[in-house]
Amino acid sequence: MRSSDRGSVDPFIVMDVMEQARAAEAAGRHIIHMEVGQPGTPAPAGARTALAQAMEGEALGYTVALGLPELRAAIAGLYRRWYGIELDPARVVVTSGSSGAFLLAFTALFDAGARVGLGEPGYPSYRQILKALSLEPVGIQTAEENRLQPVPADLAAAGDLDGLIVASPGNPSGTMLDRAAMAALIGHCAERDIAFISDEIYHGIQYEGRAVSALEISDEVYVINSFSKYFSMTGWRVGWMVVPEDHVRRIERLAQNLFICPPHASQIAALGALESHDELEANLAVYAENRRLMLEGLPKAGFGHIAPPDGAFYVYADVSDLTDDSLAFAAEILEQAGVAVTPGLDFDPHRGAHTLRFSYARATEDITEGLRRLEAFMAARKR
Amino acid sequence: MRSSDRGSVDPFIVMDVMEQARAAEAAGRHIIHMEVGQPGTPAPAGARTALAQAMEGEALGYTVALGLPELRAAIAGLYRRWYGIELDPARVVVTSGSSGAFLLAFTALFDAGARVGLGEPGYPSYRQILKALSLEPVGIQTAEENRLQPVPADLAAAGDLDGLIVASPGNPSGTMLDRAAMAALIGHCAERDIAFISDEIYHGIQYEGRAVSALEISDEVYVINSFSKYFSMTGWRVGWMVVPEDHVRRIERLAQNLFICPPHASQIAALGALESHDELEANLAVYAENRRLMLEGLPKAGFGHIAPPDGAFYVYADVSDLTDDSLAFAAEILEQAGVAVTPGLDFDPHRGAHTLRFSYARATEDITEGLRRLEAFMAARKR
Repeated sequence: MRSSDRGSVDPFIVMDVMEQARAAEAAGRHIIHMEVGQPGTPAPAGARTALAQAMEGEALGYTVALGLPELRAAIAGLYRRWYGIELDPARVVVTSGSSGAFLLAFTALFDAGARVGLGEPGYPSYRQILKALSLEPVGIQTAEENRLQPVPADLAAAGDLDGLIVASPGNPSGTMLDRAAMAALIGHCAERDIAFISDEIYHGIQYEGRAVSALEISDEVYVINSFSKYFSMTGWRVGWMVVPEDHVRRIERLAQNLFICPPHASQIAALGALESHDELEANLAVYAENRRLMLEGLPKAGFGHIAPPDGAFYVYADVSDLTDDSLAFAAEILEQAGVAVTPGLDFDPHRGAHTLRFSYARATEDITEGLRRLEAFMAARKR
Repeated sequence: MRSSDRGSVDPFIVMDVMEQARAAEAAGRHIIHMEVGQPGTPAPAGARTALAQAMEGEALGYTVALGLPELRAAIAGLYRRWYGIELDPARVVVTSGSSGAFLLAFTALFDAGARVGLGEPGYPSYRQILKALSLEPVGIQTAEENRLQPVPADLAAAGDLDGLIVASPGNPSGTMLDRAAMAALIGHCAERDIAFISDEIYHGIQYEGRAVSALEISDEVYVINSFSKYFSMTGWRVGWMVVPEDHVRRIERLAQNLFICPPHASQIAALGALESHDELEANLAVYAENRRLMLEGLPKAGFGHIAPPDGAFYVYADVSDLTDDSLAFAAEILEQAGVAVTPGLDFDPHRGAHTLRFSYARATEDITEGLRRLEAFMAARKR
């Protein structure tokens, strides 16, 4: 049967690691999971209770395409709480995860052939979604001195761009753009009619200072966020997007046709999650302790070349002194140490052969045990 | 801010009717809803119980991209039950509603600029999704003598096609392609390397004979289905797709990147729905009674020009003897009779000014009252 060029996207390399980890577990081994990018915790109790109650009394049919009005209002309230911004709920679009938001944003903004910049290292699906939509992903190599975030000077080398997507805190780096760095990028793009998309999916998970939203600087941006990370609801596939006022109708029409609506049950749960402050802050305290352990334990084990993450739950390590092949090295760590980690090639096709991503989203006891294993593995390797 | 051409899709016309109906209800009027394309019933009790239990014990994080293996196996089992087909569960892809399946199918099959045929009248989002993906929707006018389904002779007039999407039972017509008609279309497409996509979302909701799946005729097709209609789970956004064996990996990579996974909670509920046979057959009995009432009551009221639907829960009426402007006529019916119906323009940009779609998916008492109102309205109109 026929098939398209644009549909031939690259696989996730981490999937190979996950499959190897699964096979090792099936063979009876105990594996510590530092490869997965999701919390080990379920949706907050308040979210689950809200849904259990709604299932008793409501049919939970389609919602309107932009999402439940009360959820849009509650999300706008979050912008007041987190950033001190007054946001019109009419500009909030509830989406089927941040994945749904990317599809809506890219189709609303770009015609086939458009060139969209993205920082390397970065979330691998940006590139693949763009390709599937007949858009050209333009990788922008970031510098270590800029903490692996793009700066305007990096963009100049990328040629004419139609759009730019940034993530702060970033995945895999966990590093953030401060207000000045964010403003510089937005200003650069505004002057050149480059659509600016800010992926803020890790907001709320931060350790030193707070993440800056692009909306604090300009209303003429797309901001994408999700209930997956801070709100611990990955599998529920519910996120949101904030768009300029004059793009709301455009997004509404696209959303009606491309998605009909985000999952109703997940929207109900999200409303409950927004009121689960204590449970979510307790999760955050776990990540903070995990991070402390990682920043102490990884260098001790021999992974010393890292930029301390400002947010998210990842440490991205330069392992060029240890290997030229991060994929083989990750397989070795899994085999020898029983710890699954992610090779950097998913995030950076150029330099990723020399990097690893360690996730610390799981329980603290797993982190402690994982670090113990990594230290023993590296000690044995040196001999 | 910049925006794309492809993102400028048409609005649903029915949304105007729904908004007028909402405004009328807000003003205190009682409206009978014959415009909405969804069951009034919730997900089956077995689906809700399964989810309530899972929420107690599982984190419900990401599933693998192609969906829970047990759900894929259970869907394959449905093909045995419904059609007597042995289907490899590896070919079953769980999706975020049929909407997610369309996005996956179209990106996997077609590059920008490809021409994809669709029967008119038909589901309006086909056209808009294709446009949003930089594909060219090619409307194919169907004939009343073919019960508003396309036949190979209609395709000849459409020029070179890269794909064809058909729906049986159709929306808005409710008419079905029988085995010979389905085989003729699949054969025509196979000879010309036209990708054949069969939208089978209304399967299970049928009154005379049973719907034929494209998979009964060929494995070299894409089949799209959903838990929304027969399984009464519209708002849950969970559907599925069956693809040729050599397309599974391709779809998996796209699904990983475009969606990560379908909603986990909805997949759990879908597993429960597949075991809720008695409740779903009871829903079907209600639709059958509603259909009987509609086929008796609509002609009696003066809507006599209809093709009795084989399946789904719609009656599509030719009202060319009553109006040249179905939009104004639908507004008049809402205003005068308190019955919301859908003007045909959403389904057929050419002939839709002369047609209306009546949905009978709601409770039988609503149908009885709606028909009473329509009869009184038409009697008053004649005077």
